[in-house]
Amino acid sequence: MAPKAAVIHLVLVPLLSLLPFSSLALTQQDFCVANLLLPDTPSGYPCKPKLLVTANDFYSRALSEPGPVIAPFNTGLTSAFVRQFPGMNGLGLGATRVDIHPGGVVPLHTHPEGSELLIVIEGPLVAGFISADTNTVYTKTVNKYELFVFPQGLLHFQYNVGNTTAVAFAAYSSSNAGLQITDYALFGNLLPVETVSKTTFLSEQEVRKLKALFFPSFVPN
Amino acid sequence: MAPKAAVIHLVLVPLLSLLPFSSLALTQQDFCVANLLLPDTPSGYPCKPKLLVTANDFYSRALSEPGPVIAPFNTGLTSAFVRQFPGMNGLGLGATRVDIHPGGVVPLHTHPEGSELLIVIEGPLVAGFISADTNTVYTKTVNKYELFVFPQGLLHFQYNVGNTTAVAFAAYSSSNAGLQITDYALFGNLLPVETVSKTTFLSEQEVRKLKALFFPSFVPN
Amino acid sequence: MAPKAAVIHLVLVPLLSLLPFSSLALTQQDFCVANLLLPDTPSGYPCKPKLLVTANDFYSRALSEPGPVIAPFNTGLTSAFVRQFPGMNGLGLGATRVDIHPGGVVPLHTHPEGSELLIVIEGPLVAGFISADTNTVYTKTVNKYELFVFPQGLLHFQYNVGNTTAVAFAAYSSSNAGLQITDYALFGNLLPVETVSKTTFLSEQEVRKLKALFFPSFVPN
Amino acid sequence: MAPKAAVIHLVLVPLLSLLPFSSLALTQQDFCVANLLLPDTPSGYPCKPKLLVTANDFYSRALSEPGPVIAPFNTGLTSAFVRQFPGMNGLGLGATRVDIHPGGVVPLHTHPEGSELLIVIEGPLVAGFISADTNTVYTKTVNKYELFVFPQGLLHFQYNVGNTTAVAFAAYSSSNAGLQITDYALFGNLLPVETVSKTTFLSEQEVRKLKALFFPSFVPN
Amino acid sequence: MAPKAAVIHLVLVPLLSLLPFSSLALTQQDFCVANLLLPDTPSGYPCKPKLLVTANDFYSRALSEPGPVIAPFNTGLTSAFVRQFPGMNGLGLGATRVDIHPGGVVPLHTHPEGSELLIVIEGPLVAGFISADTNTVYTKTVNKYELFVFPQGLLHFQYNVGNTTAVAFAAYSSSNAGLQITDYALFGNLLPVETVSKTTFLSEQEVRKLKALFFPSFVPN
Amino acid sequence: MAPKAAVIHLVLVPLLSLLPFSSLALTQQDFCVANLLLPDTPSGYPCKPKLLVTANDFYSRALSEPGPVIAPFNTGLTSAFVRQFPGMNGLGLGATRVDIHPGGVVPLHTHPEGSELLIVIEGPLVAGFISADTNTVYTKTVNKYELFVFPQGLLHFQYNVGNTTAVAFAAYSSSNAGLQITDYALFGNLLPVETVSKTTFLSEQEVRKLKALFFPSFVPN
Repeated sequence: MAPKAAVIHLVLVPLLSLLPFSSLALTQQDFCVANLLLPDTPSGYPCKPKLLVTANDFYSRALSEPGPVIAPFNTGLTSAFVRQFPGMNGLGLGATRVDIHPGGVVPLHTHPEGSELLIVIEGPLVAGFISADTNTVYTKTVNKYELFVFPQGLLHFQYNVGNTTAVAFAAYSSSNAGLQITDYALFGNLLPVETVSKTTFLSEQEVRKLKALFFPSFVPN
Repeated sequence: MAPKAAVIHLVLVPLLSLLPFSSLALTQQDFCVANLLLPDTPSGYPCKPKLLVTANDFYSRALSEPGPVIAPFNTGLTSAFVRQFPGMNGLGLGATRVDIHPGGVVPLHTHPEGSELLIVIEGPLVAGFISADTNTVYTKTVNKYELFVFPQGLLHFQYNVGNTTAVAFAAYSSSNAGLQITDYALFGNLLPVETVSKTTFLSEQEVRKLKALFFPSFVPN
Repeated sequence: MAPKAAVIHLVLVPLLSLLPFSSLALTQQDFCVANLLLPDTPSGYPCKPKLLVTANDFYSRALSEPGPVIAPFNTGLTSAFVRQFPGMNGLGLGATRVDIHPGGVVPLHTHPEGSELLIVIEGPLVAGFISADTNTVYTKTVNKYELFVFPQGLLHFQYNVGNTTAVAFAAYSSSNAGLQITDYALFGNLLPVETVSKTTFLSEQEVRKLKALFFPSFVPN
Repeated sequence: MAPKAAVIHLVLVPLLSLLPFSSLALTQQDFCVANLLLPDTPSGYPCKPKLLVTANDFYSRALSEPGPVIAPFNTGLTSAFVRQFPGMNGLGLGATRVDIHPGGVVPLHTHPEGSELLIVIEGPLVAGFISADTNTVYTKTVNKYELFVFPQGLLHFQYNVGNTTAVAFAAYSSSNAGLQITDYALFGNLLPVETVSKTTFLSEQEVRKLKALFFPSFVPN
Repeated sequence: MAPKAAVIHLVLVPLLSLLPFSSLALTQQDFCVANLLLPDTPSGYPCKPKLLVTANDFYSRALSEPGPVIAPFNTGLTSAFVRQFPGMNGLGLGATRVDIHPGGVVPLHTHPEGSELLIVIEGPLVAGFISADTNTVYTKTVNKYELFVFPQGLLHFQYNVGNTTAVAFAAYSSSNAGLQITDYALFGNLLPVETVSKTTFLSEQEVRKLKALFFPSFVPN
Repeated sequence: MAPKAAVIHLVLVPLLSLLPFSSLALTQQDFCVANLLLPDTPSGYPCKPKLLVTANDFYSRALSEPGPVIAPFNTGLTSAFVRQFPGMNGLGLGATRVDIHPGGVVPLHTHPEGSELLIVIEGPLVAGFISADTNTVYTKTVNKYELFVFPQGLLHFQYNVGNTTAVAFAAYSSSNAGLQITDYALFGNLLPVETVSKTTFLSEQEVRKLKALFFPSFVPN
């Protein structure tokens, strides 16, 4: 039986501040938009005060244009993680966009803390990953609106096998998935040539060649 | 210093079965493709034997075509969860595709166990959600290749505000995100008219009208 | 063989500050009472300094009296979440108390981030929830000292079927379970009448009637 | 604008099996009632087939009567964990009921994998726990409908300080919280007297006395 | 086909600041070294700014020497948890070292929030734990370079059964495993003699004797 | 006040089967030793029946001897994960042992799903890892009984810098940490030479040379 509205009006108004949705009470955290001015924690950034949160915090244009082309890869890459998209904080989600030009690649890399779902918008592209325990390679040509999934932390890659730019969005199972491109990790820093060679069995000559490509300011030792 | 390859060949072969990538040892679980023939568990399906796993298990065409149009919503909906895409098992990811025709809606709903990242492929559409603790509505028009995020478990909706079909992919932070459409939960089952009315304050007449729409075989009490 | 106490006294005293329970060392976090003056994080509030923590932080009278009666529901509702009960911070637990007067209801709602265990203290009441994937309704009359469990995020309700006030305590699997009452989410805010109607298929007339009930200060558009 | 019901009826019926709530599709796990006939896993029991699930699976009378009185404690104890209440499987919740008679105690114990929220139904009782890192004792008298919380894994106890039976329900943050009563762990098994003495510094005489109490069938060595 | 290095140099340099590894962008958290000056949270300490992090943060000498001998136990104990080793923050790992002299023990204790892997460096020692649900004792002599595992939260102990000092490292599944030594919890604080006796069934005389050992400054009541 | 033992004997015996530690009731899972004969799940293996569990299930000699030397690395490697040590199932812990001979290395690798704590038993060795977001290298010489920690999923390595065999135990934050050695992933399988070259920018000649080393049975294309 529905209550009589007239009576309720009188009663409801003074009680409103006691209800769980009262803007004064804020009894629960149903989201936690990142306050990027405060230091991060293992679970994410502290929350922006709710009174300052607007719909724009849950909306992002970070992936609306292709990212800058990284020359050796001939691929544009751009990200929507918590620093670009503070509304994602604590939600266990992240995203990137890749625009792989003809002949381009997303080079061998891992996401240290998340699995990846690849949604191809313009194909075809080849996606592949390598199992850690059997060393098996799983590779597949993926076309428009098809999906491929890369299990957490495993080395994987994509490359364009068509004549037009391939476009894909990737979603991650963590707002903290990370990205470690093997070439940058090995060749794009101060790691000495002989250490790279010793721990990978690549020849020092090859390491020097790739350091020249990925870390041109490196002064060879 | 690189070892001499000739010597290594002789030594390496008999040791291979002791190495972590040996196909016999299978010492670690780096993924767990669902064996849908066995009963589910709270963490997902038991794993398909690795020897039977192929690249096809990590690939899906489940979202490559629009889903069937649900008449009252004028929207096509199709899903890629673990039963459609067994490679997602245990990876904390799921996906759906919506094709919202002009005038169409994705009606009010929740995902009981996951947050959602909406990636708009063809826009514009309006996306909105309602905070649980302040009851605030956050709404935004989202265009091609823009993003919107819906925090876990909160009521949300989308609708087309253009003259062409809007298309979006949604990724979830759980392979178990679920989908509860409020209309089906209230009107699309055997829940008695008076119970719906009593627990929602909708009039019994309105409930009957919507039961006729969402559960046409329901014999009114 | 027990050591000789006399000897130990001499040795133990200077060593005490090295032991794990020393009040100076505080090497481990075995609880984290909320410091409500600092901003929340996705895992909860920062911890109050241990030297300021007392037994009162782990004790609460928040549910010792019925909550204020919400007129349309004829039910009293009160909560013990982290803001009312700072000792719960980070422990994965929350609680509410409902006092459902004769004819009263706990209206349709969800807890976006937790499951609920209902412990009935005075019955009978009817408890029910709706499955998201099969749309099935599970309903049961629950009496004094009986239990009912609502899986995470699913729509559920309770109502009094007796002549006396029903009383129940609910415990949640998360200190962050949240509460979203469908009526307040739909009708108790600035969400336009036509948006509610479009995304729920309720008639605009019905929406206006319920907005008048749940948001009397709303100026109809 | 609401769609016309007559048209929709015709369209909706053949499409029903494609909708997420179809009883055939079962695309998502929104709960997982335990199938106790199959072996447990680290995340809980495999799920009972949904077609066999009824409202009774989510309902339990396990705590509706006091548990049997354990003589030395003068306290009745009874539990609602997954084996007594299969609907709790995977939901991160468990419960017990204690009926502490005058002079009775809930002896020193821990829950190895969960925090506890104590809801006192009839008081007063004293509740206390001991911090692991500072060794501080937090103790409080708790009365009817008041709460006390015991952080995960810490030693705690309750005892009756009134002249009538105290009754309390406890909810746990894990369906797997466990219960380890120190007296049973030390004295209620085959652990040799000298091992207990050596690792606790209790005298062998005291250990023998308590073994006689908690493990009367033990043949002293 | 490898790109031409000369061309790439020109292109790559201005793009570097857009790449994910740029030291300016810091788009992702791949570790979170504790800033011990800020208050802890349920997930750990806030992160030290990355620009201040060095290799020393991931390195620790905290266990390189035996800990101070605790007289009644004749055992040295020292820990590497987040306060001693800030690089462990948020990584789900902790460690201790025990040096058990002949006749010494690691007395009965629990880790409230983690499982333990014991790696014996010098043996033999006896390790044992007690199941919470069956009360069974699992005991084993463990020698040099052998392992024993203690499931989360269960009472366990070790003692030396040789003529030389036994040394072991323990790793925990949580940076927050904690340590609760039963003797200190019962006897090393202000918990009244009669409360200990009432909740453990130890005689008051025995409790007084052990309080004299573990809390010599306690003034008996 | 202690109860009288004589009375209790009579009462306690018939009640034993109702107590939580009864071997018949098995009301709780306090550990879950792997039954390796059943298929794995995302949370680990199903549990071995408790009546069959013995202390040997929690004990392992898997690391008591050095693992077989892998020729190119001049390092012995052996593991104690769930298949070698079923008692670890579900406990969030794993371990390996490395014996790095003079000049030897633990080559560049990741653990896809866990952080690593390295405990050096015989040093010195050099340990290093590469940050994913800043590409910084953190390297340190680690000596006997010192610790180093590698955050989850990041590329890391160790090598011997002394004249004697270095020995270390590694503990992981997951029983599912995994191990992906970059050389095996790139060169030890059927991944075509040109795919490796395209996705890493290594020359095809270098790739062929390393395939000959790590996959001698590979027939070059």
